Amino acid sequence: MASLKDVGERALIERVLKGIRGDAYIGPGDDAACVDVNGSKLVVSTDIVTFERHLVKGMTMEQFGWLSAAVNFSDIASMGARPIGILAAVTLPPDTDENVLYDIMNGVDQCAEFCDAEILGGDTKSGPGTVCGTALGICDNKILTRSGARPGDLVAVTGSLGSAGAGWYAALNNMNEKDALSAAMLPIPRIKEGMFLSEKNIATSCMDISDGLSTTANAICRSGGVGMDIIWESLPKGAGVENVSKKLKISDKHLMLDCGGEYELMFTFGKENLDILHSSDIEFSVIGKITSGNSVNLIVEGNSERMEDNGYEHFTKG
Amino acid sequence: MASLKDVGERALIERVLKGIRGDAYIGPGDDAACVDVNGSKLVVSTDIVTFERHLVKGMTMEQFGWLSAAVNFSDIASMGARPIGILAAVTLPPDTDENVLYDIMNGVDQCAEFCDAEILGGDTKSGPGTVCGTALGICDNKILTRSGARPGDLVAVTGSLGSAGAGWYAALNNMNEKDALSAAMLPIPRIKEGMFLSEKNIATSCMDISDGLSTTANAICRSGGVGMDIIWESLPKGAGVENVSKKLKISDKHLMLDCGGEYELMFTFGKENLDILHSSDIEFSVIGKITSGNSVNLIVEGNSERMEDNGYEHFTKG
Repeated sequence: MASLKDVGERALIERVLKGIRGDAYIGPGDDAACVDVNGSKLVVSTDIVTFERHLVKGMTMEQFGWLSAAVNFSDIASMGARPIGILAAVTLPPDTDENVLYDIMNGVDQCAEFCDAEILGGDTKSGPGTVCGTALGICDNKILTRSGARPGDLVAVTGSLGSAGAGWYAALNNMNEKDALSAAMLPIPRIKEGMFLSEKNIATSCMDISDGLSTTANAICRSGGVGMDIIWESLPKGAGVENVSKKLKISDKHLMLDCGGEYELMFTFGKENLDILHSSDIEFSVIGKITSGNSVNLIVEGNSERMEDNGYEHFTKG
Repeated sequence: MASLKDVGERALIERVLKGIRGDAYIGPGDDAACVDVNGSKLVVSTDIVTFERHLVKGMTMEQFGWLSAAVNFSDIASMGARPIGILAAVTLPPDTDENVLYDIMNGVDQCAEFCDAEILGGDTKSGPGTVCGTALGICDNKILTRSGARPGDLVAVTGSLGSAGAGWYAALNNMNEKDALSAAMLPIPRIKEGMFLSEKNIATSCMDISDGLSTTANAICRSGGVGMDIIWESLPKGAGVENVSKKLKISDKHLMLDCGGEYELMFTFGKENLDILHSSDIEFSVIGKITSGNSVNLIVEGNSERMEDNGYEHFTKG
């Protein structure tokens, strides 16, 4: 029998989905599921963050709480929905100072307030230090999903790439990279951007970059039955990537493609909608295009190389 | 500084609630929160179950999955809502056999099917063995809450009491108490009963008995600013309570009042509605009445004694 670490999280999720019933509007399997509530499209998603994996060195408990909410609201954003609330179930060791719990919940609350949402519930149990968040949102327009990208569509990302990874390494190595540290510890869910794409009915697919660009690009291609060419030189390099890369001798490709923890959105759209995007206040970069192939390719100085799904994988990676 | 185990779960939740913003329709703080979704009343609740605390000796992983869903649907039931779905975020040690995950999710799915709901999402991460469930429901009628009991109201419980506790001890001691073991491992959320009370607008308050009758009785009284007299002889003794109590020399009071894990509903209602309840197919027992006092009293052979909140308390109890 295979163990969880042999199989890896993404394969496990696919296998679980095969075993359960399901006829939600949009299934589990996307960033979030969508169900009909008396005619309204309710979007829901759940994600666990853990001290073991997500507590960056030097991070406060309020920041950890913010992060635990942000990862969940990011899934709501990637569906194009408007957040309404979050539930946060916390496990902590019994001898933990009670203020740790209050600080975590304050962080959750601050992120919820930023997203114009509120805390709707919670639970506390003895455990190793985890927050299981469940975010809810409503979509009044088009639900954005991973599938739907068409050959010829442009590929874009919001914001910039690699800062979260750079911040993580900066924290580990006591580097004072303020913007990168902030990107890693206080990620901003791209709510406004997701809602804009939904409202304008522009995006043919959308997904957040929580496990890294290479994972997201491959997921969008698998879901849509398409390929993708990404131009390395067009990727928006985030704050701190250059410095951390040079100083710690970590390749900028690793930071920008595989580190995860980004919470930017990748989306695809028809060329004809480029003007609408440019005339908006959405910060985005076109990074490539959808092809009729079946692989994700990274074009570096004109040379194409396969971009495998090397993003963060729970259980199998440390 | 106090630690979590010094404070205890219920006090922690009260303190957390003071620190966060909140203007949901109802709660957090009740069994579930209720929010308006374009005119519909959406009810949501989250609860963590853990191997450490909830994995009864001899329990299968499918049963553990069922339990993790049932505790959440029970909170939906206690609000009088109709379940629509559940999200289940699972932590397991990396060297766990992958079938453990599939069995847990199958159990969640079976309980969801029993409740006419479906799995809407999930997550898996490395951890000690926990399932964080979040259940969603819709209430088309009156939302039931803990507050609202009025002096003179009758107090009732669905089903019977003590079987879950008896089943727990039976499992620990290899006693073949089939019905009690089933009550502990495969609890039935009282969906039909909650929806009936809501639809008929009968209950003045309602709460599930997940932490034990003494906790629920005290919570309903605190929330309503009332007291309660419970007649010991009127409590419906569940299967296995007598045998386990005698054989293991555990008092039946402990099993029926303080053990928790019951997932029956306690509800209060005006005498005039007794006929409606009797003419329904709801299995219930009247166990006492609401008073204008400020304590919960247990009347045993005509003698009144204070019934303190001795139910299960996370962090402070083992």
